[in-house]
Amino acid sequence: MKMPTPDASVLARRVEIANALRAIVPGEGVIVEQDEMRVYETDALTAYRQLPMIVVLPKTTEQVSQVLKYCNEIGIKVVPRGAGTSLSGGALPLADGIILGLGKFNKIMDIDYGNRTVTVQPGVTNLGITNAVAHEGFYYAPDPSSQIACTIGGNIAENSGGVHCLKYGLTTNNVLGIEMVLMNGDVVRLGGKHLDSDGYDLLGIMTGSEGLLGVVTEVTVRILKKPETLRAVLIGFPSSETGGDCVAAIIAAGIIPGGMEMMDKPAIHAAEEFVHAGYPLDVEAILIVELDGPEAEVDHLIGEVETIARKCGAVSIRVSSSEDERMVFWAGRKAAFPAVGRISPDYLCMDGTIPRKELPLVLNRMAEMSERHGLRVANVFHAGDGNLHPLILYDANKPGELQAAEDFGADILKLCVEVGGVLTGEHGVGVEKRDLMIHQFTETDMNQQQRVKCAFDPDGLLNPGKVFPQLHRCAELGRMHIHRGQLPFPDLPRF
Amino acid sequence: MKMPTPDASVLARRVEIANALRAIVPGEGVIVEQDEMRVYETDALTAYRQLPMIVVLPKTTEQVSQVLKYCNEIGIKVVPRGAGTSLSGGALPLADGIILGLGKFNKIMDIDYGNRTVTVQPGVTNLGITNAVAHEGFYYAPDPSSQIACTIGGNIAENSGGVHCLKYGLTTNNVLGIEMVLMNGDVVRLGGKHLDSDGYDLLGIMTGSEGLLGVVTEVTVRILKKPETLRAVLIGFPSSETGGDCVAAIIAAGIIPGGMEMMDKPAIHAAEEFVHAGYPLDVEAILIVELDGPEAEVDHLIGEVETIARKCGAVSIRVSSSEDERMVFWAGRKAAFPAVGRISPDYLCMDGTIPRKELPLVLNRMAEMSERHGLRVANVFHAGDGNLHPLILYDANKPGELQAAEDFGADILKLCVEVGGVLTGEHGVGVEKRDLMIHQFTETDMNQQQRVKCAFDPDGLLNPGKVFPQLHRCAELGRMHIHRGQLPFPDLPRF
Repeated sequence: MKMPTPDASVLARRVEIANALRAIVPGEGVIVEQDEMRVYETDALTAYRQLPMIVVLPKTTEQVSQVLKYCNEIGIKVVPRGAGTSLSGGALPLADGIILGLGKFNKIMDIDYGNRTVTVQPGVTNLGITNAVAHEGFYYAPDPSSQIACTIGGNIAENSGGVHCLKYGLTTNNVLGIEMVLMNGDVVRLGGKHLDSDGYDLLGIMTGSEGLLGVVTEVTVRILKKPETLRAVLIGFPSSETGGDCVAAIIAAGIIPGGMEMMDKPAIHAAEEFVHAGYPLDVEAILIVELDGPEAEVDHLIGEVETIARKCGAVSIRVSSSEDERMVFWAGRKAAFPAVGRISPDYLCMDGTIPRKELPLVLNRMAEMSERHGLRVANVFHAGDGNLHPLILYDANKPGELQAAEDFGADILKLCVEVGGVLTGEHGVGVEKRDLMIHQFTETDMNQQQRVKCAFDPDGLLNPGKVFPQLHRCAELGRMHIHRGQLPFPDLPRF
Repeated sequence: MKMPTPDASVLARRVEIANALRAIVPGEGVIVEQDEMRVYETDALTAYRQLPMIVVLPKTTEQVSQVLKYCNEIGIKVVPRGAGTSLSGGALPLADGIILGLGKFNKIMDIDYGNRTVTVQPGVTNLGITNAVAHEGFYYAPDPSSQIACTIGGNIAENSGGVHCLKYGLTTNNVLGIEMVLMNGDVVRLGGKHLDSDGYDLLGIMTGSEGLLGVVTEVTVRILKKPETLRAVLIGFPSSETGGDCVAAIIAAGIIPGGMEMMDKPAIHAAEEFVHAGYPLDVEAILIVELDGPEAEVDHLIGEVETIARKCGAVSIRVSSSEDERMVFWAGRKAAFPAVGRISPDYLCMDGTIPRKELPLVLNRMAEMSERHGLRVANVFHAGDGNLHPLILYDANKPGELQAAEDFGADILKLCVEVGGVLTGEHGVGVEKRDLMIHQFTETDMNQQQRVKCAFDPDGLLNPGKVFPQLHRCAELGRMHIHRGQLPFPDLPRF
């Protein structure tokens, strides 16, 4: 595979740049040794690897500001990084760029129960926020599978979701305020502890911007009271279509479950063999529906869900009768990715989102594609909000299988767009889906997005090579002329 | 009052411009007669009036595109307008600008129950969406008081709320997709029927952008199933503080009411005299708490709310026993503004938002300010999300009273910012709060907001004079030099 061509003039100044960065971040905050930088060479999209030029680990907002100002002035590319759990290659380094690691921003700064907010530094983990307030009965709602490791700063970059986002929203619905540093070193504050906001919704635009607009240095999130009662219903269906119909019927009845997840037969079997969750093995699909709230409400809703499921043709229904049983229902779902990893040498996790009612159509078409590409697929997904996670099984050691898996994945995502959906629900575009963006957006759409990018980072130094398949010079965007800028990763290196 | 100075070179070309616009929008789509333009001279912030140069009423997206392209090329200012119900002067015309009225965009284009969405043209009223789906048991959640008249396009411009936004969100939480026209005439689509999105959150930034970034020509919103049961509790308190404490206690108990509204004594008495809602007159504050959902849940939650209210020192509690009684409870709240209009010749409606726990402090300080400014104030507000609507009572015919009312209002909003809140919850900045923006944002913050504005409208032709107290030239923003551009309404005309 051809590696991206780094800027030789920047690499030639590597020692000088490292020294300048050391003056800003003293002590052990600047890493240049290859061995020490090795841990930064990839993220959770492990198919791609690249050593950065230098790793910088600042401790304060002032240091971040000075590092960005310096890089902006002399034209050095910057890749911000949290815990490196991105599934789309959002934190993949550049050979001629620095990694700006936010790992030392790990303090919880303020817990305010009166306003139901927690303010933290961006390197605090997602679960770390919940852990800080759990003893008072509160929690932070978005719960990506990587929540033990992933940071809240990374959650903002990717607008992360989780199994409860149908009812409680994605990151964008749970972040109230941030402090961020612009590429020119300016420090701005967006939002705060209040629920409404004035001025443009820059907080909204930062959430899901994949590290291309600025570096977050402080985060205020809302916390929620843990529901009084949580119970889950495990429902088996004779086909994915009937399961999909049941999802639509539950939503149509006005019920918003705390979580509503679906798994198809390959995923059920892989999970069951791995964690013994007690899933039925004679069904084509299962649905896990979790209801939460006051006990009276949960009892009532469980009755309604059971009635709906029976009408939809469910062949088995089990309601959790204890907290332990509820956790076991979820254990299989939460372990689905590693479980699939046990039955296949490699897998590619896709992340398309579709209008809910297209579920049966898309599942059928995916089965056809599986035949055509000669690769198995296991489906695990956030059924309630139409966010699919097809896991394409392949073996990287068999010639052509990675390529076939990527082609299959691209076909799935194009289908999602075709039925009115989008390329990504919560994993981001990154490098993985960058070249598919032209299937989602017109040139006019993309130009307008890049004009907004120019408003934050006019020289395109923040995380280049991600999200946009073409980089335009800002001065030229105004006149709508299309010039292809130098694109990092013109042909992505794979491992 | 000094009127803004219009651009004489533009006014001199008025006939030529009108003819060019007639070529784009034929028939009765271009209005130049003063008498006919009179209905466009103000909006619901009636203190300010200004006749526009020309009114254009296009019927198609293509016409909007061509009008904007033409105005962009020859440098004509454009003020987009829905139903003109803005409370902050967002639709106030410019003497040397056109009004682009979207009133003819009044079609419902698609109702899709499977995806729970409705797609409409932007001139459809807020209530018109609910009316189109009510027979199937659905509704559109945000419900501003002006919902009979206000349009969904205007709701997007102002990110409108209503009494149910604590539970169901503001406009930004209920709009899934739009088609919009940029100032250069480009047509872009943002979002769609799906719940998640990729690319930058331009839909979020458009929502609440007050007509400064583009013109919306199509809107897709989510609709919700009408709750099975709705009941309201009317609670009387011996002081505003105890009422505020009760709001915090209900939220802290994990209850998210469908609506939670508070009124103070002056507002209670004005409303009771007007609509005879049966409000208690011997209390200092009332809280209307509405619970919705399945009957079992509502019964359970009403019991909890009653218990909490008693603990907080409530002196009267009434639960609606019929749909008629529930509507009567709300009638007083919904008529509060006109009711206050009956007890005072004029009033100014403010719209600050504060972190919820600061309610008692802010209410106390407001009472002190009322004494100092010598003007009465009635409080009606969305207690659940901390969004205040103080109504400052004054008489425009008494010399100095409008000025005193505006000074009082400015003091209230500065206090909101001081305690960590914002200038506006749902009415927008417009011209009304424009000059207070410097109390909310630093120069760095404002410059970054204007860089985003430049990404949409580099010549600042869309709705200038609103939101920003200073306009900077886009080329200069990049270099952070501050130049004051020509600002419409340097000294606002009042009536």
